[in-house]
Amino acid sequence: VPIIETCLSPALLHLYNFTDSIVVVIDVFRATSTIAAALSNGATQIIPVDSVQECIQIGNNTPNSITAGERDGKVAAGLQYGNSPSEYPAHFIKGKTLVLTTTNGTRLLHMASNSKQIITGSFLNLQAVIDYLKASNSNILLACSSWKDRCNIEDTLFAGAVAAGLADTHTHNCDSTRMATQLWQQANKQLDTYIQDTAHWHRLSAYGLQQDMLYCCAINKHNVLVTYNGQALVATT
Amino acid sequence: VPIIETCLSPALLHLYNFTDSIVVVIDVFRATSTIAAALSNGATQIIPVDSVQECIQIGNNTPNSITAGERDGKVAAGLQYGNSPSEYPAHFIKGKTLVLTTTNGTRLLHMASNSKQIITGSFLNLQAVIDYLKASNSNILLACSSWKDRCNIEDTLFAGAVAAGLADTHTHNCDSTRMATQLWQQANKQLDTYIQDTAHWHRLSAYGLQQDMLYCCAINKHNVLVTYNGQALVATT
Repeated sequence: VPIIETCLSPALLHLYNFTDSIVVVIDVFRATSTIAAALSNGATQIIPVDSVQECIQIGNNTPNSITAGERDGKVAAGLQYGNSPSEYPAHFIKGKTLVLTTTNGTRLLHMASNSKQIITGSFLNLQAVIDYLKASNSNILLACSSWKDRCNIEDTLFAGAVAAGLADTHTHNCDSTRMATQLWQQANKQLDTYIQDTAHWHRLSAYGLQQDMLYCCAINKHNVLVTYNGQALVATT
Repeated sequence: VPIIETCLSPALLHLYNFTDSIVVVIDVFRATSTIAAALSNGATQIIPVDSVQECIQIGNNTPNSITAGERDGKVAAGLQYGNSPSEYPAHFIKGKTLVLTTTNGTRLLHMASNSKQIITGSFLNLQAVIDYLKASNSNILLACSSWKDRCNIEDTLFAGAVAAGLADTHTHNCDSTRMATQLWQQANKQLDTYIQDTAHWHRLSAYGLQQDMLYCCAINKHNVLVTYNGQALVATT
């Protein structure tokens, strides 16, 4: 029976051997939520990059692309759009390439490159993640982006939601997975309110991003499977 | 109002600034439980050391001392006793110095040396820890020893129990503290059974240590305040 492990912070990733695992990169507020929304709404691909500089450069060299990214809750200087899932409706994003720079999520994509496969997860595409992993017969590492390496609730909850959904096909002996699953059992009936007492909620509320965070809690609203091909994130069916 | 932070693994300790905080070192299974038991039962002091070699050497040079420590669930070669809280009843340990080597706990004592003060915590002395911190008017870092840097449930639960006990005197905006507190709310009515589905329970059960772990769950059985003076752990009143 394949196993699940959960890594609550990128600073703990070195403890896990994931060469034989599918790694699920999780950054609920808001990179992997924005990725699910844009791809579900028809973006051709999303190119994740580390820096604003790189974002501008790749944007200039990529036809039909737009550049996006935030620093401190605002569109970064030199970029066109932000990191809100609601900014990418189909009539805007369909057929385009999104070049996206994020603080946390991009880093994990690179850190997990030595894995069997990388997919990204958020509440917006929870069921697509579960369905894919259920059928995979593969070991899984649920990798939380956290906030500057500090464990956060929203990524942990999502890991718990995935683990709970895999109870019939996977096993585990990982306390982080147990904690995530148990927290999810507390939270899942009232995710919208539960999420409002978290460090990220308090931090991003100061930028007026409450509606954005509630959007990220809309389970299965953009139910697309997102895979990383080493250069870009794409919708996979 | 002073704040609480919780660090779920020594590998995350660098994220926290604790120079102005009391650090509570937590290693429920079993170092800080054994420490509480031995000091509550009258041990003069406990000298924590990193290696078996050092343990033997200090034991040889310390009058009326005994050496203790385990590797892989058995008394380490060259030492006299193990790491079970039940091994140190008053009629045996009273007036003696315990020289103790542990895998995880000792390391954190050294890592946290740049703090305002270090105390140790376990369910056996939960109330003494809470009472002391309540009256301290100080910032607090709850530092979990974890298992080889992987987050574990029993240390996290203890952090949650302490944080819950400080709700009237301290504040926090730390997701690790929130998660710990919420897990404690689930577990505290049935700690004995809750603890039996954890990685440590499964690992140590293979060595026949179930009774030992249940002993560590006896809340306030050895209700002593333990402080670290830089060289030894002592009971403080």
